[in-house]
Amino acid sequence: MIDYRTPLSDLLFALRHGAGAARLPHWDDETAETVLTHAAAMVDGIIAPLDPVGDIEGTRLVDGRVVMPQPFVDAYRQFAGDGWQGLAVPEEDGGQGLPHILASALSEMLSGACITYQMVLSLAHGAMRTLAASGSEEQRKTWIPRLAAGEYLATMCLTEPQAGSDLGLVRTMATPQSDGSWSISGGKIFISGGDQNLTQGRIMHLVLARTPDAPPGVRGLALFLCPSLLPDGSRNPIQVVRLEEKMGMHASPTCQVAFDGARAEIIGAPGEGLARMFTMMNAERLDVAVQGVGLAEVALQRSLAYANERKQGRAGKDTGPDIIARHGDVRRMLLAQMALAMGCRAMVMRTLVDLELGDRPALMELMTPVCKAFATEAAMEAADHAIQVHGGYGFLREYRVEQILRDGRITRIYEGTNGIQAATLAGRVIRLDNGKALSEFKAEVEAAMAVASPAFAQGLGRALAAWNEAGPLLLARKDIGLTATAYMRLTGLVAFGSAWARLEAAAGHAANPARIRAVAAFVRDWMLPEACHLAEMCRNPSELGSLPDEVFIA
Amino acid sequence: MIDYRTPLSDLLFALRHGAGAARLPHWDDETAETVLTHAAAMVDGIIAPLDPVGDIEGTRLVDGRVVMPQPFVDAYRQFAGDGWQGLAVPEEDGGQGLPHILASALSEMLSGACITYQMVLSLAHGAMRTLAASGSEEQRKTWIPRLAAGEYLATMCLTEPQAGSDLGLVRTMATPQSDGSWSISGGKIFISGGDQNLTQGRIMHLVLARTPDAPPGVRGLALFLCPSLLPDGSRNPIQVVRLEEKMGMHASPTCQVAFDGARAEIIGAPGEGLARMFTMMNAERLDVAVQGVGLAEVALQRSLAYANERKQGRAGKDTGPDIIARHGDVRRMLLAQMALAMGCRAMVMRTLVDLELGDRPALMELMTPVCKAFATEAAMEAADHAIQVHGGYGFLREYRVEQILRDGRITRIYEGTNGIQAATLAGRVIRLDNGKALSEFKAEVEAAMAVASPAFAQGLGRALAAWNEAGPLLLARKDIGLTATAYMRLTGLVAFGSAWARLEAAAGHAANPARIRAVAAFVRDWMLPEACHLAEMCRNPSELGSLPDEVFIA
Repeated sequence: MIDYRTPLSDLLFALRHGAGAARLPHWDDETAETVLTHAAAMVDGIIAPLDPVGDIEGTRLVDGRVVMPQPFVDAYRQFAGDGWQGLAVPEEDGGQGLPHILASALSEMLSGACITYQMVLSLAHGAMRTLAASGSEEQRKTWIPRLAAGEYLATMCLTEPQAGSDLGLVRTMATPQSDGSWSISGGKIFISGGDQNLTQGRIMHLVLARTPDAPPGVRGLALFLCPSLLPDGSRNPIQVVRLEEKMGMHASPTCQVAFDGARAEIIGAPGEGLARMFTMMNAERLDVAVQGVGLAEVALQRSLAYANERKQGRAGKDTGPDIIARHGDVRRMLLAQMALAMGCRAMVMRTLVDLELGDRPALMELMTPVCKAFATEAAMEAADHAIQVHGGYGFLREYRVEQILRDGRITRIYEGTNGIQAATLAGRVIRLDNGKALSEFKAEVEAAMAVASPAFAQGLGRALAAWNEAGPLLLARKDIGLTATAYMRLTGLVAFGSAWARLEAAAGHAANPARIRAVAAFVRDWMLPEACHLAEMCRNPSELGSLPDEVFIA
Repeated sequence: MIDYRTPLSDLLFALRHGAGAARLPHWDDETAETVLTHAAAMVDGIIAPLDPVGDIEGTRLVDGRVVMPQPFVDAYRQFAGDGWQGLAVPEEDGGQGLPHILASALSEMLSGACITYQMVLSLAHGAMRTLAASGSEEQRKTWIPRLAAGEYLATMCLTEPQAGSDLGLVRTMATPQSDGSWSISGGKIFISGGDQNLTQGRIMHLVLARTPDAPPGVRGLALFLCPSLLPDGSRNPIQVVRLEEKMGMHASPTCQVAFDGARAEIIGAPGEGLARMFTMMNAERLDVAVQGVGLAEVALQRSLAYANERKQGRAGKDTGPDIIARHGDVRRMLLAQMALAMGCRAMVMRTLVDLELGDRPALMELMTPVCKAFATEAAMEAADHAIQVHGGYGFLREYRVEQILRDGRITRIYEGTNGIQAATLAGRVIRLDNGKALSEFKAEVEAAMAVASPAFAQGLGRALAAWNEAGPLLLARKDIGLTATAYMRLTGLVAFGSAWARLEAAAGHAANPARIRAVAAFVRDWMLPEACHLAEMCRNPSELGSLPDEVFIA
């Protein structure tokens, strides 16, 4: 059984031919290969072995502090010491100044190898982006180097028991102090890495709180930087009051955190909280999409390994049992997994490259929720296939495919449930700027069709036509309760199809061209046709608004 | 939070109007209501509270014996003492002589309340059916009363490490002894209830084994009755050598069992093993479908309860947060859950009534795999929605919806993976008797259309036409690797639609007619149209047979 092996050639193929990374101004193909080769050795050797340990041992709350499995602590020391947290941080801030897309590739590798390890580290990247975009000169100069060096990790403290998807209900209060600082009091829940012992308790919390006399709702919120330690080295009054027991992600500490007059600095001004946080939330949404890719990849790897080893039945006419990789139903699932892992990788990486280029903000508004929702659904579909490919063994913890499903199930929920992503797309993004996001998306798909083989371009064109027809139908609806998710999947499918168009066109450059061509044909013939069905759902006249409440009583 | 509440009025509605239970010769409406009312009090009061205990405590192997959580032992004593195991066993065998369909209704309730409890008990029912169909007079007279009284429980020992879906590879040997008994040696895996302490170790194992000089493959197998205790009260040499750690079903002991010269009796004759076992396997397949219904029901219940309590955002124009049961995307998921739970119940129960009537064996060959696959997929879809409805809380163990997914995931695998069910349907059943199963199925759907409202009949008719077109396409294919699952889902959808046609027609008799009508409209407008997409997939000319092996190498 394999733990995880970095798919180095697939990653480089996706970066070069799927994502078009060469469009980045400082891109260098050779540097990318060298960096990722080093990263692969580290991830496969040091990080992947943590994953089963983390699932079994989990985290513990000891005297109010979170204790992670010791191998995580040891691995982090080496990881941070080798400078991996600062890979994409500018050199003047203590980083290595490489393109963000390489840090995202590392993020995918970590997610496939051990998603809980990736999770605990990942919020530091969003925090650095937030500081770079919204922090004062002093905040940036003080905090980015600490985060880049891995001396500090970060959290994102938004959610409260009554305020999940609805941040307007946040009650945590921040009160200004005479010395210009703020004092934060209130309770936050679902705080990933709310405490840990990788950085000996050095944590930079980003906290969303309400300021005195502020208006109700989201306009009354501000963003605060709240470190776990005060300048004199004593602890800021921030307590972990509870560690959640979860379906999976056992080694990622999910904390209830109480702020009891904790000293903090404001980032930006009162009332700007949500806007400042959005940098981080959008970065995190794409990072969750990257997690999805890593999870789909490891699900594929374990399935391929098992399917090439396990013998059952006869696929052909020979006597004697055959490996199940020759059985039609297993092949169907393996093809789906390959399609999902490779296509989502290309789609998400292309979006990240475009984000770094920064020239199509409207397209980014569309692709961020689409990548988040589609790649996390893909990850869970790939994990689900992995269990099914393993048969009864898939249900055993030992084979570690059920763990992928248990760990990854949260990716469809956090950073905005996929239902919220769908409502964002179908309710807001399609109306932005007279449909600018839609026209940029359409141009992007047409560009992919232009490089594709005629057969693939035809299949993708049919899906695009279905999508094109669905947009105005959504715009005309009063009620998107039943249709938003169908429209989201439709959009995701077209984006994913475009990614595959580029991969198919470059198949000759892949390590396994036969695979790329076979999977592209599978995408064309077996996945893209769903677009027509989804468009029909968007056309569906029936609605929920008129249904009486009694239908839904408990 | 609710554990589980027997949906008594929904159950009776499904029995009367979905399943047409009155077609049974000894059916009595009032008796059914009385029995199920008593059963409901017992299940809700005594069985449902076991479920969280079982998930946390699980089972342990102590000195080679399986120990279950003590509350399970206590509950079983009362359950067996009150005669519930013998509900549908003829009175002359010590049972209560009620229709099998009532035992199945109880099975659904137990599955919703605590599936591990149901699981440990359920194989005894299949064993009794097998004895009734295939046992000698003496075997029946000796063993059925013991099982009916709950004094013994049973196992089904088929699988071996190298022989999962492929029973032709079974190696366990049975050697005839001079006294007419047999001696069994070999190892079996995935044996549910291979040991337990509910019956103080009194277990009747049904074992599939190879006899000396028998031909290779399945024709060399025979079925044996192998009790855990010998007539003198000493233990037969049967050891639990390992207890599996699983994704879920923690309180259901899944054992590796070693038979080391265990004394056994043959059931039937050498070479008849698989045929004799099929009674049990078909009964178990439908019982797994029933498990699916119970799981879908409990997923629905917890979702409805949460959605009517949790407040977030504004669904309408009022100020202040609204319960999420008013949000469109949540309503979509609740409707899907209601559709799946109620429709699968009606579909599976109707099949069980038909099985009891015994007049359409070809239809049963079709409906058995369809119910198994469709209802278990439905259960997992409902469980998945339950997690999503709960948002972040859905990922916490405390809310006990992730447990439904973890427990139920095996239902798509055991008793033949759903891929095997699909291959059975698309490869074998459609060819039986010149398509007799297909024509009986079509007649059954048309009968449902005849009672449906015109709008529903039209939607179902479109789905039936799609299905009707797909059958010959499947028959013409050389390779069903990519299409079998699509055809299975298509057939399931049409069967499920027929069940809803009957429920909609009887909506006036339901406890909540508005719900039945709203959900029927959802099935008609949002679920049945998938049939056309699935038929298109069956029409798809591309195949797997021609793909080179290198596409699938690890």
